[in-house]
Amino acid sequence: MNPQFQQIGETFVKQYYEIFDGEREGREKLVNFYHAELSLMSFEGVQVQGAACILDKIKSLTFSKIARAITTVDCQPTFDGGVLINILGQLKMDEDPVHGFSQTFVLKPLNDSFIIQHDSFRLVIHNV
Amino acid sequence: MNPQFQQIGETFVKQYYEIFDGEREGREKLVNFYHAELSLMSFEGVQVQGAACILDKIKSLTFSKIARAITTVDCQPTFDGGVLINILGQLKMDEDPVHGFSQTFVLKPLNDSFIIQHDSFRLVIHNV
Repeated sequence: MNPQFQQIGETFVKQYYEIFDGEREGREKLVNFYHAELSLMSFEGVQVQGAACILDKIKSLTFSKIARAITTVDCQPTFDGGVLINILGQLKMDEDPVHGFSQTFVLKPLNDSFIIQHDSFRLVIHNV
Repeated sequence: MNPQFQQIGETFVKQYYEIFDGEREGREKLVNFYHAELSLMSFEGVQVQGAACILDKIKSLTFSKIARAITTVDCQPTFDGGVLINILGQLKMDEDPVHGFSQTFVLKPLNDSFIIQHDSFRLVIHNV
């Protein structure tokens, strides 16, 4: 297990959301975090596989501005040297109301770096 | 990858929470879902490893009644034949207010069954 799992997880979260939350054209760069075939994404219950299909999904999101606040980042080392990351926070897309969100990533080591093996995203919508 | 991942995940979630949410004495049985050494849990940011320590953590929870409503269960197959499960829902412990919660499990195949390799739990507390 990688003893740096916490730092790896937190650095990844910062890098990933900086790009995701930046200029719309820049979101193309997110493709580099995913593997051409082996990456799996669930986005609001829709499942897609592979970097190209995942990027299509991301590019289909129509918001132009997003504000995000991270509440918690929980990291666990995986037994192949990767990291399981669970994120809770809040986001606001354009003029939509603020929503909670939950996102899970599993990073897998590959060639001295990491790819996203699993990515699972949901807005947290409660009727409390 | 196991093509039955969705069914495995949903069956597990049902079984796990039936025991967790049942009689307090019965929660001891949850130990059987974890591996003596290889299971990792994060509970509200506290990390513990191994079935015995995880059971201690679960037994330290002092609520006697819990009501739970599951909102979403997202499952992905892992490349070792296991399942990544992301759950969102709401729970109410004793007379506490209703809280949202987020829980992630990674199930790993072992001896014709599955163990919980990773378990990460957080209450969702927002100031919206």
